[in-house]
Formats: sequence, C-alpha cells, structure tokens
Amino acid sequence: MAHPASPVNLAEKLATFDECWSPRIVAEANGWHFKLVKVLGEFVWHTHPDVDEVFWVISGVLEVRLEERRAVRLSPGDLLVVPRGMSHQPYAHEECHIALLEPAGVPNTGDTGGPRTAADVWA
Amino acid sequence: MAHPASPVNLAEKLATFDECWSPRIVAEANGWHFKLVKVLGEFVWHTHPDVDEVFWVISGVLEVRLEERRAVRLSPGDLLVVPRGMSHQPYAHEECHIALLEPAGVPNTGDTGGPRTAADVWA
Repeated sequence: MAHPASPVNLAEKLATFDECWSPRIVAEANGWHFKLVKVLGEFVWHTHPDVDEVFWVISGVLEVRLEERRAVRLSPGDLLVVPRGMSHQPYAHEECHIALLEPAGVPNTGDTGGPRTAADVWA
Repeated sequence: MAHPASPVNLAEKLATFDECWSPRIVAEANGWHFKLVKVLGEFVWHTHPDVDEVFWVISGVLEVRLEERRAVRLSPGDLLVVPRGMSHQPYAHEECHIALLEPAGVPNTGDTGGPRTAADVWA
C-alpha cells in the first residue's frame, strides 16, 4: 500500500498487469476497495446478494448484461450501479479497462463462485 | 434518481451545473454517495474526523494541501484518499472537475462548518 494521502495514478497502475478478469486493488477508504480490472470477453453471470456494485469505465466499451433480458453499454466516463441482488454479466468485445468500487471482501464472482473467483491483490 | 442500473454519464452530469464548491450527487451505492464537484480557488481547511475521503480528478489539476505542510498535485486519472482526521484544503488555480466518493451525509466542510457547507443535492 502507498503512503497515506499519496496520489494513485490509474494509468500507471493499469500498466502493471496484463491479465483480464483479475482485479487489482489500488486504494482503500472506509472499508471500501477501489479496484482496476481489465475485461475481455464475457464473465460468469453472478449476483451479489448484499452489496451494490459500482462500475466506472476508464477506456473501451463495457456491456453489462442484466436480468430482465436487458443490457447497458458503458463508455469511458460512464458509471453504473448494479443494485444488490440483480444478476449481471460483464462483457467486452474488445479489451476494456474499468474501475470497480465496492466494499472490501466482495468476491468478483458473487454467489456463483467457481474457478474465476479472484483473490484480493493490490496493484 | 435514475432508474436502478441505468448508466450515469459524468460529462452530461457536469454540464447540468456551473457553481463551484457545490457538490452534486450522481449515484448511491451501499450508503455511499458519488458526487461531482467543480473547483476553483481555495476551499476552507477542514477535517473529517470519522471518514476517509476519496478525490478523483476528471479534468484539470487539483492541489490538496495537507497537514504537515505538504501538498499533493492531482491530474486527470489521479485518485487520492485523505485519511480520516487529516486536515486538508482543496485548491485549484484553474477550474477543475472532480469526483468525491464518500459515505452519504459527510459535510463538505467537515468539522469546520460555516457558510460554505453545502446541502445534499442530486444532479
């Protein structure tokens, strides 16, 4: 972790890893984690029963498929809150970089689990 | 408030107001508020005794003066966590647009209060 009150540059942190679907924590505040994720292709459908999840697109285009057979398409500068309990599947046709903002300890695969569940890793 | 799981475009929200030092809430998740703020000149020195505050620069340059006679300079794509209890004073030489991420209900002037304290307003 950085010295308290040291700036974190998101582009520099994104340059430290290549793996997709492998979130890296870049900051912590009030028990929340700020994570960067590289996204390509589709993730597993999952639900976070107890937490709202915030997606913030930094570069590229992110599609978030939602229950009710609808999907939203997010461009850089777009933010989306997926409310707790709403099943969703992130997808990107081309590599996309996003920030995820959520309480610490939330698994990326929610209640689906499985091999794509990532450990907490700091960038 | 928008329909649940509707995208929020930050540039569009920023275009809805001109006032500086007048935060607008654009999203809520898990009891946190995501606010946009236009910044010009200097704000009051203040401290949030119980919450960490997250600054995320969208455009322009933000200086955050901190106790210990130091300051950090943030450019677009930089994020800064000011830990609870650390006195700070945001400043911008030219207009700067930032996102503030913090638990709902945190006053912008912290424990300093006074006439620059802003009400909760949604964009």
